[in-house]
Amino acid sequence: MKLSEIETPAVLIDVDRVEANLQRFQAYADSHQLAVRPHIKTHKLPRFAKRQVELGAVGITCQKLGEAEVMADAGITDIFLPYNIVGKPKLDRLVALNERVKIAVTADSEVTIRGLAETFNGTRKPLNVLVECDTGMGRCGVQTPDEAAELAKLIDASEGLRFAGFMTFPKTSTIKQTEAFLADAKQKALAAGLDPRVISNGGSPDMWRAHEVTSATEHRPGTYIYMDRFQVSKGVGTWDDCALTVLATVVSRPTDNRAVIDAGSKALTSDTLGLEGFGRITDYPDAAIVSLNEEHGVLDLSACKTKPQIGDRLRIIPNHCCVVTNLFDEVVLISGDRIVEITPVAARGRVD
Amino acid sequence: MKLSEIETPAVLIDVDRVEANLQRFQAYADSHQLAVRPHIKTHKLPRFAKRQVELGAVGITCQKLGEAEVMADAGITDIFLPYNIVGKPKLDRLVALNERVKIAVTADSEVTIRGLAETFNGTRKPLNVLVECDTGMGRCGVQTPDEAAELAKLIDASEGLRFAGFMTFPKTSTIKQTEAFLADAKQKALAAGLDPRVISNGGSPDMWRAHEVTSATEHRPGTYIYMDRFQVSKGVGTWDDCALTVLATVVSRPTDNRAVIDAGSKALTSDTLGLEGFGRITDYPDAAIVSLNEEHGVLDLSACKTKPQIGDRLRIIPNHCCVVTNLFDEVVLISGDRIVEITPVAARGRVD
Repeated sequence: MKLSEIETPAVLIDVDRVEANLQRFQAYADSHQLAVRPHIKTHKLPRFAKRQVELGAVGITCQKLGEAEVMADAGITDIFLPYNIVGKPKLDRLVALNERVKIAVTADSEVTIRGLAETFNGTRKPLNVLVECDTGMGRCGVQTPDEAAELAKLIDASEGLRFAGFMTFPKTSTIKQTEAFLADAKQKALAAGLDPRVISNGGSPDMWRAHEVTSATEHRPGTYIYMDRFQVSKGVGTWDDCALTVLATVVSRPTDNRAVIDAGSKALTSDTLGLEGFGRITDYPDAAIVSLNEEHGVLDLSACKTKPQIGDRLRIIPNHCCVVTNLFDEVVLISGDRIVEITPVAARGRVD
Repeated sequence: MKLSEIETPAVLIDVDRVEANLQRFQAYADSHQLAVRPHIKTHKLPRFAKRQVELGAVGITCQKLGEAEVMADAGITDIFLPYNIVGKPKLDRLVALNERVKIAVTADSEVTIRGLAETFNGTRKPLNVLVECDTGMGRCGVQTPDEAAELAKLIDASEGLRFAGFMTFPKTSTIKQTEAFLADAKQKALAAGLDPRVISNGGSPDMWRAHEVTSATEHRPGTYIYMDRFQVSKGVGTWDDCALTVLATVVSRPTDNRAVIDAGSKALTSDTLGLEGFGRITDYPDAAIVSLNEEHGVLDLSACKTKPQIGDRLRIIPNHCCVVTNLFDEVVLISGDRIVEITPVAARGRVD
């Protein structure tokens, strides 16, 4: 099949750009003696998880048990699940997963730790648990290094659990604050006779400054594999690094300055991440995707010298690639304009 | 299985509320001699499409060929696809679909009509085509009643096509403008000797004022089956009409006024539709869902007298139900707190 025969909307993944993006960050991390533990939420594809490991990643990161199960099925053997696993059904699944692969989770409360401990006490293999630290993001995580050290001690004292270190999902603008928090937590854990052997930092937005968090032993970038309009806006990559595009067709040209495409919020999502508009059209960078309905994208062409016509196919770099792959059952892997393979998004829809 | 055993996040559908919502609008439409042609993009479930027809709907509306194919497979025999179908692969699929069921599409340009005509000229069964009119929404559609009449004539003159009427997706605030446009287009078509037998108006936001568009012969509500936070904000339904909720678990309570749930933008979507926050928590209406990451929802509890704890399960009425069902492979049908059935979302992911 040729690219021109692919029906729209479709997700295209440029495998050469993927490879370059993976190698570039691995080389950076290697040069700083920083382990890479890529977050697979972005691609949800076993093949890319395996490639990340082949290139030097110490393992992968998943955000959902379901994602981790898919990746374990595919042969990935070292998985970090930075999430508070709560409730019996999920705890039972976690035990099963821990029997199969090397796994670690996070906890940020006594409640979560007690649930883990009750479940893993008496199992064959202890569970690795890191303490999640809120170093400025305002999401999950303990609020102070003292609390982090207290939970570390609680984990260490729990039969069935093994204290493995600290984890944060940092706020990009507060790298110094992140480092100060982690260094303090590490010091306090060491003072208590504990070994915080993994200090896991994360995110693509700050990945080129990962080395500034000197306490961190590993970094967890996700979006870096595909890049997107948000990452480019932050200077993390360039348009030429963007490996994921949504292929769409112009279906209407109601006025001289308006076009409508067959990709709406069920293809591009409503994520703006603070940007204006809903993506960048590679061949018409002056066109603005001004609004989305579920199956329509409305373009303002007033800044365009040449304008796309009905039937023209456009490629769009979305604001946020991670939520786009989650909407498609399959993606089209390409090299240049050649189709390499059409592949199912194996971990798509693994919501729990 | 009991509701308490369902893993989160999950989508719950209250079938009693569904039934009441469907009956309520059907009765209203019947009282105004207005046909109902529900949009199935909201539920994507054959069972509800069939129930809508049983209750009196003249047929259904789909937004994608893929959705229509699923519904035809399930036995629905009258489908309206209000979309400009462009490009050979989709036109071929449209021919196949037209052989199986009664189908109509829209067109808003000579280009689209010529593509349809070239494809359907010589086929066994002509294709019904309505002219899409932009009566204020600023999406697809011809801009004037004169253009509408011209395209009607072009359809009528095309071998393989049959002019079937006019269609609009109206802007809620401009009902008078919508009626004026449609009445004028209808008059011009009649003057040209054409029969605009269907005048299709649409949308849940203005469904209780559908009778004010006196030229319309049918209305196409979608969201009305489930209702959501946006529809309630517009007064279209009440909280007690909301049939779809996302079940989520509190996984973290990092501070006294912050909770984190296991439903983020990959469960609730980033759709705000102009609202503040990302949903209403039924048991904690004073809690605000202030931000979403992909797998985390962050709640501000400062206005709450009682506050949910880690492990508590919450039900959330999302801002926009239509994009939520599209993220889940299956939904849990409930009656009160009893599980009726867990059913796959048959037309989910039918992106093209």
